[in-house]
Amino acid sequence: MNVLIVYAHPEPRSLNGALKDFAVQRLQQAGHAVQVSDLYAMNWKAALDAEDDTGHQPGAHFNPSLASKHAFENGTQRADIAYEQEKLRWADALILQFPLWWFSMPAILKGWVERVYAYGFAYGVGEHSDTHWGDRYGEGTFSGKRAMLVVTTGGWEPHYSARGINGPIDDLLFPINHGILYYPGFDVLPPFAVYRTGRIDEATFPDVREAFGRRLDDLWTTAPIAYRPQNAGAYDIPACTLRADVAPEKTGFAAHIE
Amino acid sequence: MNVLIVYAHPEPRSLNGALKDFAVQRLQQAGHAVQVSDLYAMNWKAALDAEDDTGHQPGAHFNPSLASKHAFENGTQRADIAYEQEKLRWADALILQFPLWWFSMPAILKGWVERVYAYGFAYGVGEHSDTHWGDRYGEGTFSGKRAMLVVTTGGWEPHYSARGINGPIDDLLFPINHGILYYPGFDVLPPFAVYRTGRIDEATFPDVREAFGRRLDDLWTTAPIAYRPQNAGAYDIPACTLRADVAPEKTGFAAHIE
Repeated sequence: MNVLIVYAHPEPRSLNGALKDFAVQRLQQAGHAVQVSDLYAMNWKAALDAEDDTGHQPGAHFNPSLASKHAFENGTQRADIAYEQEKLRWADALILQFPLWWFSMPAILKGWVERVYAYGFAYGVGEHSDTHWGDRYGEGTFSGKRAMLVVTTGGWEPHYSARGINGPIDDLLFPINHGILYYPGFDVLPPFAVYRTGRIDEATFPDVREAFGRRLDDLWTTAPIAYRPQNAGAYDIPACTLRADVAPEKTGFAAHIE
Repeated sequence: MNVLIVYAHPEPRSLNGALKDFAVQRLQQAGHAVQVSDLYAMNWKAALDAEDDTGHQPGAHFNPSLASKHAFENGTQRADIAYEQEKLRWADALILQFPLWWFSMPAILKGWVERVYAYGFAYGVGEHSDTHWGDRYGEGTFSGKRAMLVVTTGGWEPHYSARGINGPIDDLLFPINHGILYYPGFDVLPPFAVYRTGRIDEATFPDVREAFGRRLDDLWTTAPIAYRPQNAGAYDIPACTLRADVAPEKTGFAAHIE
């Protein structure tokens, strides 16, 4: 199988760098093909702007989503964007690996999502009508592919627990897992998280690496998070709210998991 | 009072641009001083990296938080970072204004947070011991200041409701409101959100503008979100989990609101 790792850490000699190198090796040893988008090493352009459409006329009004649609349809996307899209088409599985900075992904990775996720590619796909609100949340371009987050935090695991002050890690990652990965069709695996990175040293790293290795070995068999598909009956369309008879006692992120 | 608006939209002639211009005018007419950090216009450097510490030695290991601490303490931060920190010191209120892209802030604004929020300035402040886990979540450098998000979405309001498919807007914004604003001490006001921006035209804009104007008029009197301060007894330290007798039936983001 083909695995794309999109990796965002500025220091190759970091824990993140070591985990990324390990993932490449482990997956290749299992016979998989691996590509890495090392965003810092690529000097990835983080900010989405009018320059992303090479057909943009100087001074013309810039509407981010319409410009994205136009550039995607007409082949006028910047080359760096089109190249990442090719990698996504090639991949059977996507791994986003990053340190959790201010409770989300680093800006450089957010900018990868914003720029590579073109209108017509990752959103604005499929029919939009009163009964079908686009091919999204379980349908879409990446349908049949798998995705997984690999996340490190300086904070302690209890800080990210059900009653931890930062909020539960699964809720903090919901906007990414559900909103960025499930939205365009990926099956999303539970994240692999490493906490309290300041305490990981040569003595403790082998355990972390081995736990990560098992998750990589199981990439094709781990059960995805059971998010509810948008267009399979659980939601009223076009309001996109859960039907009254679906988990009537639930609200919030948890309501969208079966 | 002094208001800092940090604004992230690539097109000045957008709805966001119009709302930002209106905010400046409305606040100034009320006698307030206003500064705007227009991140796209400033060509803000989004990616945090070793160049943010002018004292960084080429080839030396780059640890993002230790480098930030060192640069902040020694006055070797890049000038653009130090300048934004001065604006934050000056401000009595901070407004972050942005379109919601992929359920969070645009990369360029995330990069503002990552780079300006230095170690010793926005985190790593105060005593860290078994009884006091830093001056954060209700304490810290921005204590006594107010903050508010101004957010636009293409999606419909029901999509962001309690049972809407995107997740409730307040939960999507929790990592920002609680994790980025409350963490370093701001009192955080409920966000001002504008939905379904594609439907806003010259006929409907005045209502949006007026609703926004009222929120700006009430900036100093609106009740902040009642997040629980970390070091006032509700949490066990250093686990930073809610004490067993505090809202024992609650988990998740909602548990951190009184």
